[in-house]
Order: sequence, then C-alpha cells, then structure tokens
Amino acid sequence: MATVKLWTDAEADADGRVKAVFDDIRRTRDSDVVNNFWRGLANQPAVLERTWAQLKEVMGRPGALDPVTKELVYIAVSIANSCSYCIHSHTAAARAKGLTGEQYAEFLAVVGMASQTNALVTGMQIPVDSAFDVS
Amino acid sequence: MATVKLWTDAEADADGRVKAVFDDIRRTRDSDVVNNFWRGLANQPAVLERTWAQLKEVMGRPGALDPVTKELVYIAVSIANSCSYCIHSHTAAARAKGLTGEQYAEFLAVVGMASQTNALVTGMQIPVDSAFDVS
Amino acid sequence: MATVKLWTDAEADADGRVKAVFDDIRRTRDSDVVNNFWRGLANQPAVLERTWAQLKEVMGRPGALDPVTKELVYIAVSIANSCSYCIHSHTAAARAKGLTGEQYAEFLAVVGMASQTNALVTGMQIPVDSAFDVS
Amino acid sequence: MATVKLWTDAEADADGRVKAVFDDIRRTRDSDVVNNFWRGLANQPAVLERTWAQLKEVMGRPGALDPVTKELVYIAVSIANSCSYCIHSHTAAARAKGLTGEQYAEFLAVVGMASQTNALVTGMQIPVDSAFDVS
Amino acid sequence: MATVKLWTDAEADADGRVKAVFDDIRRTRDSDVVNNFWRGLANQPAVLERTWAQLKEVMGRPGALDPVTKELVYIAVSIANSCSYCIHSHTAAARAKGLTGEQYAEFLAVVGMASQTNALVTGMQIPVDSAFDVS
Amino acid sequence: MATVKLWTDAEADADGRVKAVFDDIRRTRDSDVVNNFWRGLANQPAVLERTWAQLKEVMGRPGALDPVTKELVYIAVSIANSCSYCIHSHTAAARAKGLTGEQYAEFLAVVGMASQTNALVTGMQIPVDSAFDVS
Repeated sequence: MATVKLWTDAEADADGRVKAVFDDIRRTRDSDVVNNFWRGLANQPAVLERTWAQLKEVMGRPGALDPVTKELVYIAVSIANSCSYCIHSHTAAARAKGLTGEQYAEFLAVVGMASQTNALVTGMQIPVDSAFDVS
Repeated sequence: MATVKLWTDAEADADGRVKAVFDDIRRTRDSDVVNNFWRGLANQPAVLERTWAQLKEVMGRPGALDPVTKELVYIAVSIANSCSYCIHSHTAAARAKGLTGEQYAEFLAVVGMASQTNALVTGMQIPVDSAFDVS
Repeated sequence: MATVKLWTDAEADADGRVKAVFDDIRRTRDSDVVNNFWRGLANQPAVLERTWAQLKEVMGRPGALDPVTKELVYIAVSIANSCSYCIHSHTAAARAKGLTGEQYAEFLAVVGMASQTNALVTGMQIPVDSAFDVS
Repeated sequence: MATVKLWTDAEADADGRVKAVFDDIRRTRDSDVVNNFWRGLANQPAVLERTWAQLKEVMGRPGALDPVTKELVYIAVSIANSCSYCIHSHTAAARAKGLTGEQYAEFLAVVGMASQTNALVTGMQIPVDSAFDVS
Repeated sequence: MATVKLWTDAEADADGRVKAVFDDIRRTRDSDVVNNFWRGLANQPAVLERTWAQLKEVMGRPGALDPVTKELVYIAVSIANSCSYCIHSHTAAARAKGLTGEQYAEFLAVVGMASQTNALVTGMQIPVDSAFDVS
Repeated sequence: MATVKLWTDAEADADGRVKAVFDDIRRTRDSDVVNNFWRGLANQPAVLERTWAQLKEVMGRPGALDPVTKELVYIAVSIANSCSYCIHSHTAAARAKGLTGEQYAEFLAVVGMASQTNALVTGMQIPVDSAFDVS
C-alpha cells in the first residue's frame, strides 16, 4: 500500500499537466505502460513534470556512458538505499536494454565487494592517502 | 586518525602473512604503493588475505563488465554508503583505468537522479508493478 | 511478518507495565487504537516505557516547532532510513495534524532535492566552506 | 580534499555556462559568495545548470511550506545520509533564515527520536497497520 | 517477488557447482532446509561458492567471539541497512543459537540508542576528541 | 568544525542543568574527561539530560548482555550509519572494557560479511522464507 493515491488513466486524462507527462512517457518508451511511480507522482504535478524531464535527459539522452552502464549505476545506488521498487524497475530496465546474466552476476559481486570494503574502511576509519588527492 | 594502527613496510616485512599480501598487491598493480586500507587491514591477517583475494578476483579478473563500469558501480555504492576513503580511492582507480571527464559528469548525474527518485519512491511507498515480476 | 510477537489487548491487560503504557497511549491520543509498533515493543517493557515517554515528550509537548513541521522532519528521516512502517505511520499522523496536499508535494520535492545534492556533494567530496564555521 | 577541481572565479569567468550560473547564484542570494558545492559542480556544466535551477525552484520559490521548515527537512535528510557538507551549509542557511536555538534543539530531538524508532521498528519488522492505508 | 529466479532442488541437482554448495549447506547445518538467499545466489555460481565459503568461515568457525554475539552484530548491521530478509534470517539464527528474550530486549535498546546518538552527533558534526586517537 | 558551540567547563559550570550532567558523567566514569558529544549537546539541556540518562541506563546498567557485546553492537550500527565520531568513541570504549585484538578482527569480519550479504539480498530482493516467521 502507498501513502498516496495512484492515479488511474481516467484520472490522468482529466488533468492536463498529468496527461501531458503520461502521454510523453508512453511516446518516449513506445509502450502503453505507465508504471506506478508516475501514478504516485501525479499527485504533485510540478514534481512529476520536473522528475520526468530530468529522467529523460539523464537516462535517455545518448552520451558518453552506454545505457546498461547507467542502469547498473542506478541499481547500485538503489540497493545501497534499500529502495525495493527502484531495484525492481531498473533491473527490469537493464535487462530490457541488454544486460546479460553474466554481467548481472559480476555486477552483484562488485556491489557486494564494495559494500563489504565500505564497512571495513569505515570501521577502521582509514585516512585518505595523499596519493588520491586531485585538488 | 584511524581506530587501528597503519602498518609500515618494516612492520609488514616482519610478518609473513602480511608481507605476502603486500608483495602480491605490489606485483599485481605493478606499483610500489600499498594504500592505507591494506595497512589497516594488516592488523587482521585473515581478513586481509580474504579481502585482497576477493578484490583481485572481483575487480581484477577480466569478465563481462569492463573495468571502468565496475569502478563506477563501486563508487556509486560508496557514495550511497558515504565512504569517503572508498570514493577517493575508486575515483582515482576509475580515472587510471580511463574514465573521462564527460563519463564522470554523466555518472554523477545518474547517481544524483537515482538518489532523488529513491527518496521519492520510498516517501510515497510505491508498490512494485506486477510487470516487473520475473519469478 | 514480524520478528517478535505482537501483543493482543488481552495479553497487554495481563501485564501491569504494558497495560499502563497502552492505557496512556489511548488516553493521550484520545483513541482506542494502539498501533503495531507498541504491540511489538511490549515484548521489552523497559524499552516500551522509555520509548513512549520520550515520544510523548519530543512529539507531543508544545514547543518552538509546530506539530506538522515535527512530523515532516520525522518522515524525512524515515525516508532516508527506508523505514516503511515509520513512513506510513507518520505520514498518516502529519495528515491528521493538518498537512495539506500542497505542503506534502513541496515536502517530497525538498526530500528529493536533498537526497540528490547529498549524493552529488558526497560523490565529489566537497570540502566545507570556512564561511559555515560557527565554532 | 575533493575528487574534483574546485573552480576559481577566474576559471568560471572564462566559461559562459558556468559564469551565467555563478552570476545568478550571486544575484539570487544577494551575496558575493559562491560556495564550494557549485565550484565542484562547475566541472559538469549541464549538472550545474540543472541542479541550480531545481534548487532555486524547490527551496527558493515561496509556497505552502515556510523556508525554515524546508531547511529543517533538508538537514534531516542530510543527517540520515551522513552528508557533512550539506549539514553544515543547510544549518547555516536555516539560521540565516531565522531558525532559533530553541527550534534547533527540538529539531535535533525529533531527528534523534525518529532515528531511534526507525531502528526499533526495522529490528522488529513491524507490519504496517491497515489503519494507515490510504489507497 | 525477487529480481532473480529462486532455484528449486531439482534445478540445483542438475548443476554440479550449485549442488555441491547446497549439499554442504545441508551437511554443515545438519538440516534439509536451504533458504531462499542461496536459491537466488545459485544464478551466479561463483558468487554462491565464494559467499558460502566466507560465511562458513566468518560465522561458523569457533573463535574469540561467541556465536550469539556474532549474530547480534550481524543483525545490527542489517537493521541499519534496512535488510528485511537478513533481519529475519539472522534473528532466527540468533534464537536458534541461544539468544534469550532478555538479551534481545537489551540488544534492541542498544541499537535504538546508537541510532539516536549517531543522528545527534552527525547533526551537530562533533569533532573527534584527540583522546580517542590510537595512531 | 561543528555546527554548534562546544561548551567549555567554565560555561558548563555557569548553567545548573548542564553542570549537573557533566558532574554525573565524571562521577559515573570516574574520569575528568567530558567528551565533545556532551559539550555539543549542552546547547540543548533537555536533550542532554535525556540522552545521558538513557545512555547510562542502556549501556551502563548490568544486564543480560556483557559490556563488550553492547559496545560491538553500538559500533556495528555506527559503521553502517557512517558516524565517524561514534566509531572512534565506542571503539575506544570497547577497548577500555576489554575488547581484544582477536575479537576486534572477528568483529570486523562479521560487519564486512553482513554488509556484503545485505547488499546481495537486497539486490536480488529475496523473499523471506516462511520458516523464519515467528508470528
């Protein structure tokens, strides 16, 4: 259960700002599905518009990182933040963009490794080596 | 300041298990530098051996993910876990392995985006869409 | 499912310390509902007593911050800590104390913004400006 | 030390996009200070522009929440995320916007309370009461 | 629902590496149950083997800390990381190893206390006393 | 640098409530040192009194868990929450209460292990086995 109402298509159609974003999501993804995140954000139209615009720009625009790498970084953050929904949606997205089982296995190993060494380093309060300084 | 002693080379040389790991770190990286993390772990030789072996396997062995992607995943986790040392050491490592400024800029944008949507999703407690189910 | 038993009213009535806290919760909130958090804490009467006393003091006593602001701070922490139960219970409490939809939308925007800039700042390891020093 | 270069005013002046943002920061805040966060973000002009535009909108535009409340929510998130820089800069901002010592004391008490109950709830894995359901 | 397939016994039996680990889990624990974590890790045999070997070594080998203390430390980390599955499985393990209700109550109180003071300290950005320095 | 003033002994002596707590800290610990945490909390006398009373009760009163175990749980939470000050102060406290180097090494191994499996479990979103249910 959510702390907000999830908007149906009928409700979205009755609100110009929400309808415009939902339409753009469908057009951009070439799919009829508008997933629950956007249906929850619809309660806050300004946040909905801004978040969708930023996501399209950051995750959708071709750039120097390939789409699967971006999704892996997204999932890594979501795991560390324990965001169940985000892990599900972006693991599905990564697979849709070509993530292989072998890549996913290595990804999990890196996430586990980093989480472990983060804890060891933090536990011992290791000071940063001056060699890492770039300033 | 650390919560443990950071071992000097002289101290490491006097302990067979620690010396063996430090030697392997230098050989594997083709560098004389043994960074502070390992000098702190030297207080726990079994943890030192296991962690280095795992790191070499997970981050060093060629696989399905390229080295820069692995480092970006590592940094993403470290940012979310707020591990200052890990962010410094792996950002330096990513650059040494070829990370460009443009890639880093996109990486930061993805990390910021994910952190933001993680919070929005968690705030609204959005239920996972059944479309994401793989089981 | 919980890792502890959730006490029924009958069980609470049979334990003097637990009954006293449950009675005070009902009296203070002028409601018959004792929510699950307290039913779980009942397994640890000393923690139950201390936590309820502190909550009543911190959240209930009129002070310099209005009740809705306190609830928003509570929810913000709970989102960052990914505490689903706490998000649900305190979002409900905030609404009961007068939080409007518009305020909630702005609140979510601030939480998202902060989460994003937290990640950017941490990723770049920005040093604190001396201008912020108060000591 | 940072993982990126912090841009000086001279460097910012030589880059049209960065200069425009720095100028707007100074104009909006009616102050000559451009704090380090923006000097680090200057390495990624697109992220700099987007982040500043969003911050101005979310934190600066008058709305349903008063400015001090927004800052307290911002700090609460930053504490839970352990972002030292963000805690410093937004505590300074909250004070500049009128936060009193008494309010700050109550704020800290709420943050401590929430952090504690978050841990207790998560430790016992308390199921959400159906009474909190809004969907 | 999981983001990966959970392997059945029949599927595990058909894969030599996975079968070997599942057999060792059953033998080591003297139980027929192989819990879901391992059934998910089975998709990544190398991670499965490494994780099980490390867990057996770290949690199973008799050492300087008694088994219940190790489980409490494990649960404490899992609470702070909001890992629901880990909290459930290791609370069950702690009880199977002899954790009493009174110990569990004190454990929860310590976890709550630490979470609270962590937030207070981080909120005030208290500098480390030089008396704590060991280097 | 802190976001609050750290009270000197002279300032504490001039405030009855603060002086009483500082005196009790010194008496309880049989030491002249009042560490920085309390000097920062002194700005909020009510929080200072409540926090010290709770800490004395939770960490100081003899109970079912031995003092070193309690400190290890405290440190484990502090590591996961990335609270540098807390890690320093409670690692020092654990050592003062008898923590050996061998115990500390095993503790670090458990914290690293838990952090790693937390991430793997969360990444795969493993459903809780019904065998762990106690309700």
